Amino acid sequence: MTVTACLLVIGNEILSGRTQDANIRFIAQGLGAIGIALDEVRVIPDKRERIVNTVIECRARFDHVLTTGGIGPTHDDITSACIAEAVGVPLEIHRESFDLLEAHMGREKFNAARQRMAMLPRGATPIRNAVSVAPGFSIANIHVMAGIPRVMQAMFETLAPTLKGGAPLVSVAWHSTQLSEGNLAEGLEAIQARYPTLDLGSYPFERPDGRYGVTLVTKGYDAARVEAAGGEVHALIESLGCTPVAGEPTFT
Amino acid sequence: MTVTACLLVIGNEILSGRTQDANIRFIAQGLGAIGIALDEVRVIPDKRERIVNTVIECRARFDHVLTTGGIGPTHDDITSACIAEAVGVPLEIHRESFDLLEAHMGREKFNAARQRMAMLPRGATPIRNAVSVAPGFSIANIHVMAGIPRVMQAMFETLAPTLKGGAPLVSVAWHSTQLSEGNLAEGLEAIQARYPTLDLGSYPFERPDGRYGVTLVTKGYDAARVEAAGGEVHALIESLGCTPVAGEPTFT
Repeated sequence: MTVTACLLVIGNEILSGRTQDANIRFIAQGLGAIGIALDEVRVIPDKRERIVNTVIECRARFDHVLTTGGIGPTHDDITSACIAEAVGVPLEIHRESFDLLEAHMGREKFNAARQRMAMLPRGATPIRNAVSVAPGFSIANIHVMAGIPRVMQAMFETLAPTLKGGAPLVSVAWHSTQLSEGNLAEGLEAIQARYPTLDLGSYPFERPDGRYGVTLVTKGYDAARVEAAGGEVHALIESLGCTPVAGEPTFT
Repeated sequence: MTVTACLLVIGNEILSGRTQDANIRFIAQGLGAIGIALDEVRVIPDKRERIVNTVIECRARFDHVLTTGGIGPTHDDITSACIAEAVGVPLEIHRESFDLLEAHMGREKFNAARQRMAMLPRGATPIRNAVSVAPGFSIANIHVMAGIPRVMQAMFETLAPTLKGGAPLVSVAWHSTQLSEGNLAEGLEAIQARYPTLDLGSYPFERPDGRYGVTLVTKGYDAARVEAAGGEVHALIESLGCTPVAGEPTFT
């Protein structure tokens, strides 16, 4: 059984189009590398009932729920309180995190707003990061991280070794500028039918010089079958009179 | 009442981390400009039951559902069939789209795989685009677009004037490299409390030279109140001894 995860991106700034998401791809690749399939992403606003209900729903449906955003010191940083509510425990000062933040900032700057960053749901395990010192946390199957990419990435590196995954996701890619999706569709479908546990994808691309092409990607958690299916994809491309080139296309 | 939308990004390539999403921000900004609030985004895999169930759920919860991805000619392009199932109508050849595609591609290249791109749910209105000729479509409150950014953008420009929105989303931004979130949190919360229908956001940034700062963004659909609240944010920044700079920070 594949271990699954759902990522909740919490924050109005993605939904308003103010900010380009820079976390989904990093987390998707990081989870794949430890054998956890990112199976859904939801971007939701900073609203209490939306966060609480989404966490309750998704933590029941997926093995892990990861969140980004909403753990800073301002009024719209309500993720920690919402997770506490979703799990049914109080939000309280986490003494060790409080002391670390106070030492890092100095007693004078460590005001009421900043002290909120030391509040964790009771029973949570802090996720340390050297970048901001303010912790993320894990509680049950929920893992809460910052939204700022550099801080999130530091937290993910701390978190990842604590998550139980399976075999890592592996993939084989072949591309060709001579291919078009409409010509390969039938052959690709036949290969997919022979390898139902793998994921065969077909991705058209356009090069800066205006030439089109298609990349065919074979992905899965069984390395031997990925390699076998990748060989069939290679043969399919040749059978269409095209030259397969290994890997993703580069545009440099 | 704000008109709401949910965006479904359909495709394994975002969930595996292969592809960086390039559509969410464009659609978020485009909807905001016509007075529709993007209220949730879900990224889901190319699996029939997941697409059907998510569409059924989300079209009941939001005024509009937009989708990207899964309308090409290959085996993993199942969005149109899933929408037909979710709405309860058959998927069938859309004659006008069939003829346009055949004329565009030539009869010889217009094989069975490519003909799938002319299949629409019965009663759907095609969304034309000059880039790929293959149509997206609207049916009821569901609007289906391609995943390739250039094609999606052409479809969105066709679709947007047909959607009923409200007043456009407007925003006022002030930033300062002298600000920190921990110092402004209390004052910002007080302004938010006076303008409950607006969305006040606080976004820390780091400049390439290593200097930090914060941008404060006031957003909403009532332009007069956005301007008034923006004035209070300006006064707050000054009251903290900092110099407000208009707009988002630029790093050039």
